[in-house]
Amino acid sequence: MSAHPRYSLNQATVKHASLAEAIAATQEAGIESIGVWREPVADIGLDAATRLIADSGLRVSSLCRGGFFTADDGPERTAALDDNRRAIEETAALAGAGAEGSAAVLVLVAGGLPAGSRDLVGARERVRDALGALEPFAASAGVTLAVEPLHPMFAADRAVVSTLGQAIDLAVDAGPSAGVVVDTYHVWWDPDVLQQIARAGSLGRIASYQVCDWLTPLPADVLLGRGVPGHGHIDFGPLTRAVVDAGYTGDIECEIFNADVWARPYDEVAGETADAFARVVAPHL
Amino acid sequence: MSAHPRYSLNQATVKHASLAEAIAATQEAGIESIGVWREPVADIGLDAATRLIADSGLRVSSLCRGGFFTADDGPERTAALDDNRRAIEETAALAGAGAEGSAAVLVLVAGGLPAGSRDLVGARERVRDALGALEPFAASAGVTLAVEPLHPMFAADRAVVSTLGQAIDLAVDAGPSAGVVVDTYHVWWDPDVLQQIARAGSLGRIASYQVCDWLTPLPADVLLGRGVPGHGHIDFGPLTRAVVDAGYTGDIECEIFNADVWARPYDEVAGETADAFARVVAPHL
Repeated sequence: MSAHPRYSLNQATVKHASLAEAIAATQEAGIESIGVWREPVADIGLDAATRLIADSGLRVSSLCRGGFFTADDGPERTAALDDNRRAIEETAALAGAGAEGSAAVLVLVAGGLPAGSRDLVGARERVRDALGALEPFAASAGVTLAVEPLHPMFAADRAVVSTLGQAIDLAVDAGPSAGVVVDTYHVWWDPDVLQQIARAGSLGRIASYQVCDWLTPLPADVLLGRGVPGHGHIDFGPLTRAVVDAGYTGDIECEIFNADVWARPYDEVAGETADAFARVVAPHL
Repeated sequence: MSAHPRYSLNQATVKHASLAEAIAATQEAGIESIGVWREPVADIGLDAATRLIADSGLRVSSLCRGGFFTADDGPERTAALDDNRRAIEETAALAGAGAEGSAAVLVLVAGGLPAGSRDLVGARERVRDALGALEPFAASAGVTLAVEPLHPMFAADRAVVSTLGQAIDLAVDAGPSAGVVVDTYHVWWDPDVLQQIARAGSLGRIASYQVCDWLTPLPADVLLGRGVPGHGHIDFGPLTRAVVDAGYTGDIECEIFNADVWARPYDEVAGETADAFARVVAPHL
């Protein structure tokens, strides 16, 4: 089997797989690139993970994920920043172990409102401060901090960064080693999305493009409502062409949080997403 | 009992009540104003409904709702426009029957993507066209068309108007008898919301302000996740002060879609929302 050369399987799509199993499924589907998650790396240790990646011959398209830095000053915030520095080091190590064309990109999810807080503006300012504090460390490690706006339905409990425009502003303020993630699932509804993709491109800030579809009705756990491209409501043509026109030439991940998808054999899922990519996304590249 | 003089009970908060029952609950809680829904009006006929309203001495703060005009040209679209003209007439009749200070405001929900369509841009253009077609009719009836942006999580299946900025643009394009609804539940996450409220005010376009809280976790049916102000994550101070500063002086509705709220006695719900309004919203007026 072979897959589109720019297609990358994000490991969250085969959530229950170990890193070795995810690599095997990726290879069996003829996919050349993988988006790695920190938890399966931690399960075996960074050294073992980098060896697996190096031996695989796959590219690494990103490491997911850092962030979660909306806490007020104090031990929780200090711990979050320390953890993000470790994530930056892991990103550099894994991308360095990956095949040529790997991207040292750390995906960042901002975090939600601190428990009991309603200060959305303040939480967003703390994200800005954290990015500013981390950017020099990322720059020296050769890593790009990729701020991912999450769908506004996650603003309270998961990510106070809700639009692509807001993410671009944060990345620009942080410095040259920060960028944004364009994930179709999170941004497709935005009346301003095509202009913001163009703006991100003109500023050289698109660090990652992820494709995933929006299904209805939303499931009981809205985190798990993501679909294989082509199964839902998103028109991947205009978004993909906008990302291409914005100058993004990197790997494109498919990241699907979906309990039904997670329950299936990993190689079957890898193959199906590669086929969906070829059918729904690749024609616009 | 008495409630804040600007508080209005939106009838959706006591969804299962007849118009007579909703009026009774509103009066028992000392609330002076009611936001009416079309279905309970249709249940008894417009003439009977206007008599009930006139006899009640209550103000009418809005009629919910028209809209749902994203269909392509054809019988469905024609029927939608005809239905909206009837809704405009109903709005004029009910506001005319209400006490002095009633607002002839028809709340409009855009509608989602037509079945099988992924053309979000096209659906949004059809909303623009429909508003343009209806505005002269609304103007001659003395009715304001109030475009309500719905939370982006409803973009696929309920409302392709997803941000306040987009709603303002649509209202401006439609003409002077169009405005917007600012519903905290739908707009609170928007990094641009305070600026857009100010813009709507400077353009004289705030037709309605509705307060409702964002709860987590979202329930299985995300339509029903709305909470009594103060029970969730929204900071009502900045939003309410922005609406005040923008010059809005009308009634403020509490509209809660929530199965637990709906299951309770109507007068108890009316009283609780009036208390919540007094505690969480009124201090900022």
